[in-house]
Amino acid sequence: MKDLNVIDMLRLKAKYLDIEPRCPLVIMNTDDAKEIGANNADRVIVTFHRKSKIVIVETTDMLVAKGDVGLNRRAMKYGIKTGDMLHIDPTHKPSSVEYIKKKLKGIELTKKECECIIDDINDNKINDIELGAYVSSIYMHDFTDRELIYITRRMIDTGTTFRWKGNNVVDKHSIGGVPGNRVTPIIVAIAASCGLAMPKTSSRAITSPAGTADTLEVWCKVDLPVDKIRDMIDAVGGCFVWGGNMDIAPTDDKIIRGEYPLSVDPEGQLLASVMAKKAAMGAKAVVIDIPFGFESKVETLTKARSLAKRFKMLGKSLGMKIDCAVTRGEQPIGRGIGPVLECIDILSVLEGKGPKDLREKSLELSGILLKLTKKGDMKTAEDVLDSGMALKKFRDIVRMQEGNPDMNLKDLLGKNIRTIKANRSGKVTRIYNRRISRIARIAGAPKDIGSGIYMHVKIDDFVNKGDRLFDVYADKKFKLDHAIKICMEDFPVDVEDRDDILVEEI
Amino acid sequence: MKDLNVIDMLRLKAKYLDIEPRCPLVIMNTDDAKEIGANNADRVIVTFHRKSKIVIVETTDMLVAKGDVGLNRRAMKYGIKTGDMLHIDPTHKPSSVEYIKKKLKGIELTKKECECIIDDINDNKINDIELGAYVSSIYMHDFTDRELIYITRRMIDTGTTFRWKGNNVVDKHSIGGVPGNRVTPIIVAIAASCGLAMPKTSSRAITSPAGTADTLEVWCKVDLPVDKIRDMIDAVGGCFVWGGNMDIAPTDDKIIRGEYPLSVDPEGQLLASVMAKKAAMGAKAVVIDIPFGFESKVETLTKARSLAKRFKMLGKSLGMKIDCAVTRGEQPIGRGIGPVLECIDILSVLEGKGPKDLREKSLELSGILLKLTKKGDMKTAEDVLDSGMALKKFRDIVRMQEGNPDMNLKDLLGKNIRTIKANRSGKVTRIYNRRISRIARIAGAPKDIGSGIYMHVKIDDFVNKGDRLFDVYADKKFKLDHAIKICMEDFPVDVEDRDDILVEEI
Repeated sequence: MKDLNVIDMLRLKAKYLDIEPRCPLVIMNTDDAKEIGANNADRVIVTFHRKSKIVIVETTDMLVAKGDVGLNRRAMKYGIKTGDMLHIDPTHKPSSVEYIKKKLKGIELTKKECECIIDDINDNKINDIELGAYVSSIYMHDFTDRELIYITRRMIDTGTTFRWKGNNVVDKHSIGGVPGNRVTPIIVAIAASCGLAMPKTSSRAITSPAGTADTLEVWCKVDLPVDKIRDMIDAVGGCFVWGGNMDIAPTDDKIIRGEYPLSVDPEGQLLASVMAKKAAMGAKAVVIDIPFGFESKVETLTKARSLAKRFKMLGKSLGMKIDCAVTRGEQPIGRGIGPVLECIDILSVLEGKGPKDLREKSLELSGILLKLTKKGDMKTAEDVLDSGMALKKFRDIVRMQEGNPDMNLKDLLGKNIRTIKANRSGKVTRIYNRRISRIARIAGAPKDIGSGIYMHVKIDDFVNKGDRLFDVYADKKFKLDHAIKICMEDFPVDVEDRDDILVEEI
Repeated sequence: MKDLNVIDMLRLKAKYLDIEPRCPLVIMNTDDAKEIGANNADRVIVTFHRKSKIVIVETTDMLVAKGDVGLNRRAMKYGIKTGDMLHIDPTHKPSSVEYIKKKLKGIELTKKECECIIDDINDNKINDIELGAYVSSIYMHDFTDRELIYITRRMIDTGTTFRWKGNNVVDKHSIGGVPGNRVTPIIVAIAASCGLAMPKTSSRAITSPAGTADTLEVWCKVDLPVDKIRDMIDAVGGCFVWGGNMDIAPTDDKIIRGEYPLSVDPEGQLLASVMAKKAAMGAKAVVIDIPFGFESKVETLTKARSLAKRFKMLGKSLGMKIDCAVTRGEQPIGRGIGPVLECIDILSVLEGKGPKDLREKSLELSGILLKLTKKGDMKTAEDVLDSGMALKKFRDIVRMQEGNPDMNLKDLLGKNIRTIKANRSGKVTRIYNRRISRIARIAGAPKDIGSGIYMHVKIDDFVNKGDRLFDVYADKKFKLDHAIKICMEDFPVDVEDRDDILVEEI
C-alpha cells in the first residue's frame, strides 16, 4: 500500500464477504457510493492505518448496510479485519486506461506506458471492461518488438524471480491445444538425469481436459513452497510444480482472465507471458514446442515459423538461449487424455515402452535442451531413457514431492467406460482435437481424475468396421452419458476411403 | 425463458443474495462449478419449472455452500424463490462473441450478426470482458451505414415502443458534455403550448453534475408508469420522465456500462442509442443539439457536420424527420450547474428573464421543432415564452407529476458557499467544461441537490481583479473544502490580456 493524498470523504466499517471475483473488491451500499460520486466498477481509495490502496467498487442495496463496507478475501489480505474503520475516498481513473485506448487506435506505446499498463493490471486497478479492451487492443494491433520487450520485462519484474548457481538451468514450454501432449515429466526426468537443473512450473487446465499440474497431482503434491523447490533442485535436479501460487509473472494469470471469455490468445501477449515465466524461473536455455496444424493453436507452418522467430528475438533480448521445435499438432499425442490416463502413458514411456509418438517427441525436445547446454543430444536422451535412469529420476522426484510412484493407476480409472467403434472400414483421415478435448471434459476431466479418453487410433491408421476407435472413461455415469451424446453429435474421428473422390452420398 | 435441451448435470438449492453487479448472476460454490467444468464468467443453463435461462456464473468458496446456488435480485426476477431446486448445466459461449471478434478484425457484420450481438447483450449473456471488447470494436471500426441501421432497429425492437395518434410527436436530444445545458424542460413547455406532443424521457447523471431527470426531480416525480405518460400527453401534451425504468431501447444502458469505464462514446453507438430511444418513444420529428468546441464531446465543426449527416441518414431510414442544430459548446450554458441551481435558471427563463444563452438556445431548438412540424418557427416559440403560456404549461406538467411549481428553490441551495474571484484583471478567454463539472460533482452534485456552481462570467467578459468568477455551493462543508482544493489545483477559468504576447512569466 502506498501513502496517497487522502481527504477522508467517508468512514465505513469493514465486513468480510467471501465473494471471489478474482480481484480485491470493496462492496459498498449504493447510497454510500453515491455520496462520493462512485459508480459500479469505479475505483476508490481505501485507507486504513495511514496506508492507502486503490480498489474497485461493487455496489449493493442490501447485502451491505449503509455505514458498512464489504471486503472480499483478496481485499482482506491487506490486513483489514471485520469491524475496522476504513476511510473511503473517490479517485481518478488510472492513466493506463488512456494507454489502452491509445493502443486500440494502433499507436505504439512507450516504455513508460507499457509498464504502467502491466503495473495497473497487476495491482488490480483495471476492471473487467478495461481488461477486455486491453486484450482487444493486442488482438487487433500486435505488439511491436519494442513493446514486446517492455511488456515482458515488466511482467518479470512484478513477481518473484529465481536465481540459480551455474548456467545449466533449463525450461520447456508447449504452445497448447494438443490433447494428451504430456511430454513435460519425461523431459524433466531426462534433463535432470543428464545433470541439468529443471525447476519446472506447470499450469492447471482452464479449457483442456488436463494441465501438466493436474496430471502430476495424481501422483504427488504439486503446490510446493519456494524453499522446497530449491531443495529439490539441489537434491534431484528437477521438480513438477504448479505455478499458480508462486507469484511468477503474476500479471499473466490476470491477463488470461481477460483472454479466456473471448477465446483469444494474441501472439504478442502469448510471447510475453511465456517468456516472462521462463525468465522469472531463471532459465538460461529453453525449448519451445510449437505444434501446428488443423485445430492446434497455430494453424500453419508459416505462422509457426514466424512465431519461432519472435521467441528467439525476445529470448535474445532477455539473455536466454531459445530453440523452437515446430511439431505436428493435428492430432492428440499419446493414447490417454485426462489425468490418470495420461499418467499411464507417461509411466509407460519412462519404462521404455510406447506410445511411440509421446516417446519420440519427448526425446526430440530433450535432445534440443541437451544440445543448447552442450550436454549431449537426442542420442544421449535416448540412452538415459532406455537405461532406466530417467525412470529412477522420475521416481525420486515423485517421492520427494510426497507422492507414491508405485500407485496402481488402473485402480484410479473411471469405472464407467464406453468403447466407440468404427461404423465403416477405411483410413483415419482426421482427428478433431477440440472435439476430443470437449468430450473428455464433459466426461469429467480434469476434476474427475479417472475420466477422459483412450485413443486406439492415429491419423493414417487403417480400420475395419467394428474396430475400436477410442474409449471414453468417466467416474460418474451421468457424465459418461452426456459425453457420449456430445460425441455422437460431433464425432471426433473421420474414417474414409481416401481413394474415393466421392466422400459421401447424402 | 426459452426451453433448452437440458441434461441436468447439477441440482442446487436457490439462495437469495443481494449483490447487484448489474446483470443476473448465479453465484456457485467453486467445487460445484468445477463439477460441470464452469469457470468464473462462464455461462450456465439454469432450469426451473421446465423453463431455462442462460446466466453468467460467479464462483465463491464460502459465501455459497456446496449444494446451494446464490442468485442476485436480477436473477430472482425470473420467479425463482429461496429454497427452490434449480438444475444447472454447462453451455457454450454465445455466438455473438465470435461476431464481436469479427468486428474487432474490422470485418463488416451481417444483419443476423448485428441482431445477435444486440440480443445477447440485452439478454445479459455477454460478460464484462466481452462487453469491453464490443465497445473496443466499435471504437476502432465504426459502424458502416448498414450496420448502424441493423443495430438501431434491433435496439428499438428489444424494448417497449410507443405509438401515438397523429404526426405531431416530437423529441429532442443533446449530445452531452456541456454543463448547465438544461434546455429540455423549456422546449417541452414551448412545444406542448404549440400543440405538439412531447413525451420526453431523460437520463440521470453518470459523470455530469446533473442529468435532466436529476434536475426535474427537484420539482416533481420523474419515475412515471407508462399509463401515466399516456394520460399526460392527452391532458397537457408533455411530460418529464426518467427513462431508466421504461424499457425504452434497454440495451442502451447495458452498452453504456461498457463505455463508461473506458470514457469512450463511439460515434456509431451514440447514433444507434440516441435514435433507437427516439424511435421507440414514437417521435416523428426530432431536433438533435450537437454542441462543438473545446472540451465538449464533439471537438470540431467538421466532426459536428459529419455527425449531423449520419443522424439524418439514420432518421430517414427509420421514417423520422431529423434536424440537427450545431451549437457552441465551449463553455457552460446558463449560470447554474447542479440540480437546484439549474432549476433556478429554468424558471427564470420561463418567467421571461435570462440567462440569455439558455433562453436563446431553447428558442432556437424549439423553433426547429415547430418548423419540422409546420407549426411555426422561432418567432412562434418566442411569443409562447414571452406571453407566459410556456410557464403555465410547465406548471401544469409539474403539478400533474405530483410536484409543486411554487416551491422556494433558494431554500434548497447548499448552505456552504464559497465565491471564487479573479486574481487579475483581463478578459475571460476560456472556461473548462470538464473542470467545472468535476468541481460541481465533488461539491456533491447531483446527489446533494443544492450543491453545484453558479457562474458569474462567460467567455469574452472583461473582469477586474477581485470580481466574482463563480460561486461553489455545497450541502456539506467537507465536500465544499474538497471541491475548493480541486478547484485551486485545476482552475476552471482563464483570465488574460489577449493583447499581450507574453502570457505569463514563470
